[in-house]
Formats: sequence, structure tokens, C-alpha cells
Amino acid sequence: MAIILYDLCGRDPELRFSPYCWRAKMALAHKNLAYTTVATPFTGIASVEDGASKTVPVINDEGRIIHDSFDIAVHLDEAYPDEPTLFDEEAAVAAARFLEAWAIVTLHPIIMRIIVKDIHDVLGPVDQAYFRPSREARLGRSLEEHQTGADANAEALRAALEPARRTLARHEWLGGRAPRFADYIVFGSLMWLVTIHGGLPLLPDDGVRSWFERCLDLHDGLARSARIAKAA
Amino acid sequence: MAIILYDLCGRDPELRFSPYCWRAKMALAHKNLAYTTVATPFTGIASVEDGASKTVPVINDEGRIIHDSFDIAVHLDEAYPDEPTLFDEEAAVAAARFLEAWAIVTLHPIIMRIIVKDIHDVLGPVDQAYFRPSREARLGRSLEEHQTGADANAEALRAALEPARRTLARHEWLGGRAPRFADYIVFGSLMWLVTIHGGLPLLPDDGVRSWFERCLDLHDGLARSARIAKAA
Repeated sequence: MAIILYDLCGRDPELRFSPYCWRAKMALAHKNLAYTTVATPFTGIASVEDGASKTVPVINDEGRIIHDSFDIAVHLDEAYPDEPTLFDEEAAVAAARFLEAWAIVTLHPIIMRIIVKDIHDVLGPVDQAYFRPSREARLGRSLEEHQTGADANAEALRAALEPARRTLARHEWLGGRAPRFADYIVFGSLMWLVTIHGGLPLLPDDGVRSWFERCLDLHDGLARSARIAKAA
Repeated sequence: MAIILYDLCGRDPELRFSPYCWRAKMALAHKNLAYTTVATPFTGIASVEDGASKTVPVINDEGRIIHDSFDIAVHLDEAYPDEPTLFDEEAAVAAARFLEAWAIVTLHPIIMRIIVKDIHDVLGPVDQAYFRPSREARLGRSLEEHQTGADANAEALRAALEPARRTLARHEWLGGRAPRFADYIVFGSLMWLVTIHGGLPLLPDDGVRSWFERCLDLHDGLARSARIAKAA
């Protein structure tokens, strides 16, 4: 029996625009699975499969009702292991590359606004003479102007870390069941901040903070013994 | 012979703050490899291993000189396959979760500013009566105020896609050598935009655009036949 996919539609039932339903359709096609779609307007979702979900996509796979595009993908890989995989090892390398680029373009500019002048202050004189002009040329202003500090940037840092926070709500590590290079990418960015600034401007109950503490415990507490800069 | 790691330092040679060197140190410890660090100020990098790199970390692994923390991690997994892995399959699931959260918190708000009123306009009357008040409550303003359109938000969209662009500069797919669910996550977000708006506001030579075209070709052109909304 073909899988049934409930697929969001517009006034024109052939207009299918939901990002999540597109993910599910591509995943079903990837697994070479036959499926039929049921055009479902927003206000039709409540009656899909006896109210199984408040959102689509929902699939009915021979009686198994699954909603959420990601959970559907995980289900398909588990239920149809002989079909092409939706998650695999090479993907982890590419995904870590994504994480690395995300850290550079999202996290690092915020951390620079917290610590760039303080980095300068911990350097020796020869390095200071190199660091200041090269960074000021890149930033387009003086280190003193650029560094607005932890209080001014804490909220931006917390907001930027949201994808990590959501991942860590589901997995103990960014690398899944165990720490992997993905963890060390983000951990490295935060150690940069911590060694210079002395602490993490995150709320006490932030899942990123507890994950960071677990990272500090790794490898016999390797990073716990790191030298922290003293205020100049 | 222990691996040598050139590690950025401050005036205090024990102050090690580089995010990239922290990644490399954690990776070496993860692989249970003995290593010694060489405290390296910024202006000492040029003389590391005969000028092998403009940045640290650099490692000398029995004569093999490798720089860039990510390339070091890849090298360590290849050179020491019997030690704990730095990349693996469970990691791909967690990484895709990260990508999903990134799409929600970064891409989707920008896409909403391009198409939220247009989405309303393609719905049937019953769905419109549901969509407008629920979205306006969430957005805190009218759909007409929120939708500032493609021209006003194209630059934000291009900037937000930078981590994907950098990943696609190294891998044909976000999933690595072949399309994986990671691709479908971002593709789904962009199909949402394309089905409603009619096109992608990306530059012609954008690597994200060519990847998107490759996605359209997948599975016998599944998504190429998608209905595109007509302007209301």
C-alpha cells in the first residue's frame, strides 16, 4: 500500500508550498517509496488522521502515523534500510563544515565585539603592533570602538546559539550520542571567549552552558586547566 | 614521536585563546594522541615549519605538516582510524537537527518577510480567516506591514545562506558526496519561497543557486513540476 502524505495546499489544491512538506516529499522520493499526497488546507489539518498532529506533513505508512518532517526522515531510514540512506557518515563531514562556516559568520563577529580589545591587551608588544592595524583595517574602526563588551552583546550571543541549543535539547552532544568534531568547533569558539573574557555570558539554565561544562570535563578536564587572562 | 602543535599564545605564553587551536587540541585528545604544544605568538606564525601556513593551528605529525583545524581533524580520522572517530553517522542526524533549527531561526524569518502576505493570498477563504489572525498575533503586526518583499530582503537572504554557500564550495551537496536529508531541509525552505514568490532572489553565480538547480533535477525532476503561485 502506498504511503499517504498529507501535504499543505493553497486555494489551488495543486499549489503545495510548505517547506516541511517539501522536505518530506524529497525524502520519500529519495527512498524510492510510492506515495500519494492528500491536498490539505491549513484548516483541514485538525481532521487529518483523527487529529494526529497540529502541523503537516503527516504520513500514514501502512497504519503508522508519523508527523514532523524530520521524524518522518528518521522513520524512513529505520523502516527502509535497504533504500538509499538519508543520513550517513560523509554527511557528518559536510555538516561539520556547515557548522564551521556558521561559527565564523555568526558567532565570531559577536565574540569579536565582546573581546577584540581584550585580545589586543593580552598580546606581547610585537604582536600588538601587528594585531591592531590588521584588525582595525578589517573592522573599519578602532578596537576600542568595536569592543562594546559582554553586557551589550550577551543577548545577541544567546540568540545566535539557538540552533545549538535546540540540537542539544535532543542530543547530548552536537555530535549526537558522543562528542565529535562538531562539538569541538563550537567549543573552540566559546573557549576563545572564556580564556579572554573569563566566563560565558549565558543564563544559568541555558542548555548550551551545561553542554559547555560537559565539554570542559572531556579528556581528563583538558580545557579546565586553561589559563584565563587577567584583566589588564 | 609526539605530534607537535603550534598553538597561538598571548604575552603570557601559557594563555592559549585561539578557537581554532582549541578545536585541534580537543581533536588530538579525542584521538588519544600524544602531542606537545609550541607557544606561538601571532608574529611567530610566519616562521612555523618554514612558513607552512599564515594561520595556526599547524601540526607536525611525523613530518606531515597540516594546517587548518578542520583539515587536521580530517587527517587524524584518516591517519588513526583505530582511535575514536571525529565524524560518524549519529553525528549526521544531530547535525541535520542543527541545520533544521538554523533554517527555522535564520532563514524562515527572512522568507516570511518576503512572502507572508502572498501566502495569505493563495489560501482559500476559510484558511485566510485562520491564517491572518494567527500569523499577525505571532508577528505582532499586520501581514501587509510585515511583508517588505524580495528586494528589501534579498541581501539578508544571501547573507543568511553564507554557511550553506561555504559548505557547497567544498561539497557538491550539503549531505557531502550525495544528497541527504540535510539538502532537503534547506531545499524545502527555498521551495516555500519559490512556489509562492516564483523565483530565488540570489545572484546568477551564487553556488546556492546552482545547488538548488541540482536539487530540482533530483528524483526525475520531482520539484520542477511544482505549481507556482500566480500573482493575486
